[in-house]
Amino acid sequence: MLNEYKISEIPAGNCRVWGRTTSSRSPLTLFWTGSGLELNVQGGELWVEVETSYSILEQWAALLINGALISRHMLEKGRHWICLFRGMDPDRPKNVRFLKEVQAMPNDPEARMQIHALKVDGQLLPVSRLPYKLEFIGDSITSGEGLIGARGEEDWIPMFFSSAYGYPMLTAEACGAEYRTVSQSGWGVLSSWDNNPYNVLPRVYTQICGPLEGEANGALGAYEENDFAAWQPDVVVVNLGTNDGGALNQPPWQDPATGESFRQARDAKGRESFQNAAVNFLKLLRAKNPGAYLLWAYGMLGREMAASIREAVARYQVETGDRRAAFLLLPDTTEETFGSRQHSGKAAHAQAAAVLSDSIQSILHLEG
Amino acid sequence: MLNEYKISEIPAGNCRVWGRTTSSRSPLTLFWTGSGLELNVQGGELWVEVETSYSILEQWAALLINGALISRHMLEKGRHWICLFRGMDPDRPKNVRFLKEVQAMPNDPEARMQIHALKVDGQLLPVSRLPYKLEFIGDSITSGEGLIGARGEEDWIPMFFSSAYGYPMLTAEACGAEYRTVSQSGWGVLSSWDNNPYNVLPRVYTQICGPLEGEANGALGAYEENDFAAWQPDVVVVNLGTNDGGALNQPPWQDPATGESFRQARDAKGRESFQNAAVNFLKLLRAKNPGAYLLWAYGMLGREMAASIREAVARYQVETGDRRAAFLLLPDTTEETFGSRQHSGKAAHAQAAAVLSDSIQSILHLEG
Amino acid sequence: MLNEYKISEIPAGNCRVWGRTTSSRSPLTLFWTGSGLELNVQGGELWVEVETSYSILEQWAALLINGALISRHMLEKGRHWICLFRGMDPDRPKNVRFLKEVQAMPNDPEARMQIHALKVDGQLLPVSRLPYKLEFIGDSITSGEGLIGARGEEDWIPMFFSSAYGYPMLTAEACGAEYRTVSQSGWGVLSSWDNNPYNVLPRVYTQICGPLEGEANGALGAYEENDFAAWQPDVVVVNLGTNDGGALNQPPWQDPATGESFRQARDAKGRESFQNAAVNFLKLLRAKNPGAYLLWAYGMLGREMAASIREAVARYQVETGDRRAAFLLLPDTTEETFGSRQHSGKAAHAQAAAVLSDSIQSILHLEG
Amino acid sequence: MLNEYKISEIPAGNCRVWGRTTSSRSPLTLFWTGSGLELNVQGGELWVEVETSYSILEQWAALLINGALISRHMLEKGRHWICLFRGMDPDRPKNVRFLKEVQAMPNDPEARMQIHALKVDGQLLPVSRLPYKLEFIGDSITSGEGLIGARGEEDWIPMFFSSAYGYPMLTAEACGAEYRTVSQSGWGVLSSWDNNPYNVLPRVYTQICGPLEGEANGALGAYEENDFAAWQPDVVVVNLGTNDGGALNQPPWQDPATGESFRQARDAKGRESFQNAAVNFLKLLRAKNPGAYLLWAYGMLGREMAASIREAVARYQVETGDRRAAFLLLPDTTEETFGSRQHSGKAAHAQAAAVLSDSIQSILHLEG
Repeated sequence: MLNEYKISEIPAGNCRVWGRTTSSRSPLTLFWTGSGLELNVQGGELWVEVETSYSILEQWAALLINGALISRHMLEKGRHWICLFRGMDPDRPKNVRFLKEVQAMPNDPEARMQIHALKVDGQLLPVSRLPYKLEFIGDSITSGEGLIGARGEEDWIPMFFSSAYGYPMLTAEACGAEYRTVSQSGWGVLSSWDNNPYNVLPRVYTQICGPLEGEANGALGAYEENDFAAWQPDVVVVNLGTNDGGALNQPPWQDPATGESFRQARDAKGRESFQNAAVNFLKLLRAKNPGAYLLWAYGMLGREMAASIREAVARYQVETGDRRAAFLLLPDTTEETFGSRQHSGKAAHAQAAAVLSDSIQSILHLEG
Repeated sequence: MLNEYKISEIPAGNCRVWGRTTSSRSPLTLFWTGSGLELNVQGGELWVEVETSYSILEQWAALLINGALISRHMLEKGRHWICLFRGMDPDRPKNVRFLKEVQAMPNDPEARMQIHALKVDGQLLPVSRLPYKLEFIGDSITSGEGLIGARGEEDWIPMFFSSAYGYPMLTAEACGAEYRTVSQSGWGVLSSWDNNPYNVLPRVYTQICGPLEGEANGALGAYEENDFAAWQPDVVVVNLGTNDGGALNQPPWQDPATGESFRQARDAKGRESFQNAAVNFLKLLRAKNPGAYLLWAYGMLGREMAASIREAVARYQVETGDRRAAFLLLPDTTEETFGSRQHSGKAAHAQAAAVLSDSIQSILHLEG
Repeated sequence: MLNEYKISEIPAGNCRVWGRTTSSRSPLTLFWTGSGLELNVQGGELWVEVETSYSILEQWAALLINGALISRHMLEKGRHWICLFRGMDPDRPKNVRFLKEVQAMPNDPEARMQIHALKVDGQLLPVSRLPYKLEFIGDSITSGEGLIGARGEEDWIPMFFSSAYGYPMLTAEACGAEYRTVSQSGWGVLSSWDNNPYNVLPRVYTQICGPLEGEANGALGAYEENDFAAWQPDVVVVNLGTNDGGALNQPPWQDPATGESFRQARDAKGRESFQNAAVNFLKLLRAKNPGAYLLWAYGMLGREMAASIREAVARYQVETGDRRAAFLLLPDTTEETFGSRQHSGKAAHAQAAAVLSDSIQSILHLEG
Repeated sequence: MLNEYKISEIPAGNCRVWGRTTSSRSPLTLFWTGSGLELNVQGGELWVEVETSYSILEQWAALLINGALISRHMLEKGRHWICLFRGMDPDRPKNVRFLKEVQAMPNDPEARMQIHALKVDGQLLPVSRLPYKLEFIGDSITSGEGLIGARGEEDWIPMFFSSAYGYPMLTAEACGAEYRTVSQSGWGVLSSWDNNPYNVLPRVYTQICGPLEGEANGALGAYEENDFAAWQPDVVVVNLGTNDGGALNQPPWQDPATGESFRQARDAKGRESFQNAAVNFLKLLRAKNPGAYLLWAYGMLGREMAASIREAVARYQVETGDRRAAFLLLPDTTEETFGSRQHSGKAAHAQAAAVLSDSIQSILHLEG
């Protein structure tokens, strides 16, 4: 017999919420890619009640059973019950993770994914605490854009985004860590790919989910200050700079409000502006995450900015005397490892995760 | 605007049906794993109307867009519209394959998957003819049992079956060929894994889908003679023997009807019985597929029967003078390449497909 | 203190001679690539007295200590003592193999490599018997031509030949077997690469080292009948056909003695001539090796002849009723796995050895 | 006809000397592993006159032709002519490198390798300048100890050392750079593996070859100040710390001269001592190599000191304001990648070189 539980009724110890979100559980809103729900279920059958909405960009979800990726699919609009498993040995506990596969979508203010309730024919067991926490701040690479799909695909649609094969997921798994992503395709440190200085992660970092737009998302709490005290990462990974590098090859962006234009430049002044933004972002990260190691990991899609970022991290160290920061070069994506949309594919994410988790394990050991 | 088409309304040239089935398209019944529908769609959005039923064992489906695996998920019971893609460039043609992920299920006579109709906002273009046809006859390995799921999983449920990662799919893709599977978990050449001599592929090979049970499946045409003339393979791959090998370590099976018992044996007589069954099956395959090369490919889960099968194929050649048959040893599954349920995982299937497609290409070249 | 032993003084059980040779040990002549001496030495220092000669093509040697390749180098002309190891723990036994790295060289009748004596500061222990014996009959691939050297090398010189990285060595090692090679660059089954029907392995197979020329080699016993009874292989691997395939694209060869010309052809008659030669060679191999499994393994440098050889092996089986023969397709060499001189490199040999040893192990298990 | 040239007679532009050495070319002394001679030869045959000496530890050499490793072998004691190639196309230029395979050997003051002269039947062409210079400072890993030999070998002998397969060689090749090594097995930053504070690379870094002992080596110039101005590296790689980490598990070392004992410790004070030594070494490296990027790359044999070194590099940056220094974690050696003597094998060195050259290329690009 299936018993139904609202998410808000489940004891916190029996349900791990992945991803930065509000404290509301009625329902639970999943803002960022990789957000979701984790349960340990002693039962043979499990359903989850999901509500999604969209105007343009639909939601996708992934399912892991005992750590293995079982399922990935588009979600129907509206409120529906989805069967996560059935017919399994009712006595054997199984670990279940149900995840959002797409990033926060500013382009579609109606895009939304929420979880209301569960139905299960057994009981929910406690979910064991993970020893470490990782936060990944990035752009399309961290959002898993192009991880899925044929090499030649060019449509910018949710289908080609994934968290389940992404380097943040793989890195966290290798480190036995919980993780969160704060990422937005096209955005950067000083500007976005098209030189727009408002589309930068530092501007929205302290909000629960700042890239989103629209009143409805405001009502859900997206623009509120994130509760940093409640979840302090051991390592903050910043994988930004790729779009700042791209902006060097783009025309200036003109602010429609003021008529002023902005453009990143290759000259010494442009380099300094970028490095100022990078150093300031590291200072902000340090302020919000006093105990975290700050690791700027870059290089999966070209190395245009590698030298500049490496130098900026060194400058941050020299300026602040903070020794707990470093630059890490990630393996570049090659002809063999591209996914779709000229982005890093599964193999490239796996390679990046191997290098990154190796460094993070060495750093976590330092803290231990 | 979405236009709806019944499958029976689509011109044959605009829709490739994968898998052995009846001539009915109202609806199209998908019997075997890997069965499905392939379309070339010039449009931005596509839906498919699917009907499934089950008593115990539910259906799963996979979706490939332009050859890339995009989605895999459990299907709801009943008749539903499923969105295969939306928001894509309406002018660019895309190749779409929607596939059944689970084998024919004798244990659940109500298990069924059918496709009724499509909705599309553009037009269906012709699907290009593939130059070769491959048929794979096998057991759980060919059914993709254990391809998905955590290493320690033991439940025998549809979730852990897959065609999309299986060696038949990968082999056909590498050869640029169409393929069909005729496979059943636990079955063999002379007996099943538990020495039941009725659960053998040779007994049901000539029927459209002989392993199924129940009147409803009969009404769908499962027990009718397959139309061999309509689809003649270039190569028939037989991947059987693993369960015959397993039966050597099992107690005898007793026929509930007659009380007689049966058991495969390691002695000379047992070996001869097995080889007789193998030779006779090759003769049946030759009779039904006069133009096909017969390739017995074995070894993915142990090599207990390798010598005996190798010898049986040689005996078939010597007895019949038919030179167009051979034995091929496939790479064994190792600790690194197991999937779930002690079966070959994704990496093992990929390795087998590499060896098999290499041999098949060399054989097809011979015919050309 | 170093004690000196002539090879002829060492008890047979304390010294394994690798490679087909005469019964003489005063000195021991190494005819074929991979030929050599194996010892188990309890001592700290070992020297070997080697004599080589050449007019054009010098000798090269390789050294394995405890199975690991330690050294590979050109040998000086004349009679010299070479130190194989020194400074090692005198009490710990070590397995030593000293090998000829180059094939028998018909182009240089003075090319010769012989071993006279040893010096050791300890004792020689018995060399354990290996359970299986493999014979490899082939062309330049089996001779290890192009295994070593930069991709672009074109000189036909001993430097670019190797046995130590070759597929016969690797296959034997994987099978725990002793092996011998009978191979000659450019030679084939019906003709050599340039359509010369005298340069074929079947013509010289029964001699100790038939490809060699000159009276001196005759005096060493190269043209005497090989003692097949003394060394019966469990499996004979034939890796021939590559040069026959190449001959199809070459002009006819004219016999300087008779003025007659010869050429292999792609038409039905040419194919039949090649297959006759292949079938007859299998019959000869069966006559000389009654207990061996005959495995024709082909495909490392193109597959021009794959279909024809596959058919010839099947014809041999049908004609003779001999079931203990098979065709095996080896992995082709790719851009990534070429060595020098447009030949298979180390990675290609390793891939071939993996496939070949897998099949041979399955066959040896059959015999067991 | 072979013409003989003393090394001192060859114009500098026609002969690249690899490795830190004196200005003498009569003869050329090779002190460090990887040291040697590079030539571009238009000729068919080349010999080199080598003189070696030893009391205990003999010399080994390797040969690369056109970048491919052709030969590796023990050298005879005394002065001998060695043929590097013969029988090659006399008109085609070939690049030749003849290398010392073993590290400087303090244990054997008589160990020595020198090159006197060449003989060639053609002409020496100019050797093209390489755009970058790398210096590798390290211990047994950088000396290539255990790169060669069976997994279980335990003898500490020259046979098991190699430069030709080592990560410095592979890294330099991937970067198109010239390289030098300054390395000594067992030595560290603050002490050697057995807590001896004299056996540290910082103590000898400024000498041409400081680890050597004996008057003869002094007469050869080993203890003179290195001419840093003559060869300024673009990147200095420090791969030290492994032996400092090992010393933590060893008893104290007692100075036979003073009776004082020394031991590295895991406590805060021990950590500070180690970090002081590391920071001071970085300052020395900066003083001697003002234009170089300083990259401390560590982790191939355990990560005991990773956190401490990472912190020390950060402290160096903060203290000096020097931004051109970084820590890089190298891949650890695993069961699959061990060589002999519990050291990193070929695969481990290749993995380290891939990570290291990726970072170095990104750094060199920064300078460009």
